[in-house]
Amino acid sequence: MQAAKPVLYSYFRSSCSWRVRIALALKGVDYEIIPINLTKDGGQQFSEEFQTLNPMKQVPALKIDGIIIGQSLAIIEYLEETRPTPRLLPQDPKKRASVRMISDLIAAGIQPLQNLSVLKQVGEQNQLAWAQKAITSGFNALEQILQSTAGKYCVGDEVSMADLCLVPQVANAERFKVDLTPYATISHINKTLLALEAFQVSHPCRQPDTPVELRA
Amino acid sequence: MQAAKPVLYSYFRSSCSWRVRIALALKGVDYEIIPINLTKDGGQQFSEEFQTLNPMKQVPALKIDGIIIGQSLAIIEYLEETRPTPRLLPQDPKKRASVRMISDLIAAGIQPLQNLSVLKQVGEQNQLAWAQKAITSGFNALEQILQSTAGKYCVGDEVSMADLCLVPQVANAERFKVDLTPYATISHINKTLLALEAFQVSHPCRQPDTPVELRA
Repeated sequence: MQAAKPVLYSYFRSSCSWRVRIALALKGVDYEIIPINLTKDGGQQFSEEFQTLNPMKQVPALKIDGIIIGQSLAIIEYLEETRPTPRLLPQDPKKRASVRMISDLIAAGIQPLQNLSVLKQVGEQNQLAWAQKAITSGFNALEQILQSTAGKYCVGDEVSMADLCLVPQVANAERFKVDLTPYATISHINKTLLALEAFQVSHPCRQPDTPVELRA
Repeated sequence: MQAAKPVLYSYFRSSCSWRVRIALALKGVDYEIIPINLTKDGGQQFSEEFQTLNPMKQVPALKIDGIIIGQSLAIIEYLEETRPTPRLLPQDPKKRASVRMISDLIAAGIQPLQNLSVLKQVGEQNQLAWAQKAITSGFNALEQILQSTAGKYCVGDEVSMADLCLVPQVANAERFKVDLTPYATISHINKTLLALEAFQVSHPCRQPDTPVELRA
C-alpha cells in the first residue's frame, strides 16, 4: 500500500502556514493543500469538522504519517526529524539554539500579537498601530541578534528554520506598512531568501486559494 | 579551568522563567540566578546592561557554555541536546511532535497574549477579561488535545517539555481567576506535577527574588 500524501490545511495569507509550505518545498515533500479560509463564512477554522482536526482552530495543521500536527514550529521540527535532508537545523547545538531562539522570537514574540484574532479584539481603529508596535519591537531585537548570528542567512550560510519564520514575518510587516529602513540586515536576508525557489512556490501569491487579484 | 556556572536571568513570577527553572532542576544543573525585576525601576529588563544580554528585553535568558540564549523553549531544547538526562522529549518522533505542539500551543498561543507588556497596552480595566479570554481559549483546545496524548503527564507517563509549560500557565490562570472546573485533565496533571520536587524548588514562591509576603 502506498503511503497517503500529506495534507496541509493552509490559508494563503497565513504567515504560519507559509513557514510550513517553505519547509515542505525545501524538503521536496509532495503534499496536498486543503485551503481553510480564515475570513469566509465567519472563519472556516471554526467549523466543527476543522476543530476536530485542530482544536486550536488555527492553520496550519499537517496530516502526515497517520497523525495530525498543529503549530508550525512543531510541524517543522517533526519534518526535520523524519525527513532530515536538507537540514533546517545546523549540526552544532549552539547554532541550533540560535536558530530556535530566532524562530521563537518571531513565532512566540511577534506573530501571535499581530494575528487576525488579536487584531479583531483590538478594534479596527487601533489595529495598524498595534500590529506595527508588535513588529517593530520584535524587529529591533532581531536586527541586533542577527549582527552576531547571520551570514548569508539568519544563522550562518545555511537556510534554517529561522529563515522560514523571517520571510513570512517580513511580508506581514509590509502588509502593516512597517518602515523597514532601520532593519537593513533583516531586509537583506529577506531579499536573498525570496530569490530561492522554495520561498517562491510557497508564496501567498501562488497558492490554490490566492484570490485572482492577488496572484503573481 | 573549571567551567563557569550557568547564570539564569529570571523573575520569580515569570511563567517563562519558571519553565526553564524546572528544566534545570530536573536535569540537575547547578546554576546561579540573577533576578531581573520586571516591575521595579520601570522594568529592569529595559536597562542598557540587560538589553545587551537579551535584545528581546525579556526573561528568561540563560548564560551557558559561553553563549547566551533567550526564549524559554530554545533554552530547554539546548539543555536537552547538551544535557540529555533525564530526557524532556520522548524518543518517538510522533510523541515528540505532540510534546512540541502542546509546548507551542502554550508558549506561542497563550502566554504571549497575557504577558505583562501586552496587558499594559490593553489598559487596566480590560486586563482581566483579556487575559481570561486568551487562557480559556487555549485551555479549551489543550483539554481536548490531552484526551488523546495524556497519560500520567501531558504526553504519556514521562515528564516532558509540555509539562514544563503547563504548570506555569495554570499558575497564571489561577492568578487571573480563570475558572478551572471545565479543565479536569489539565487540573489533574497540574496537581500530579506539582508534587514533584523539581516543580517545587523552581516555584515562584521559593525564588531568591520572591517578596516575603508571597513566600511559602
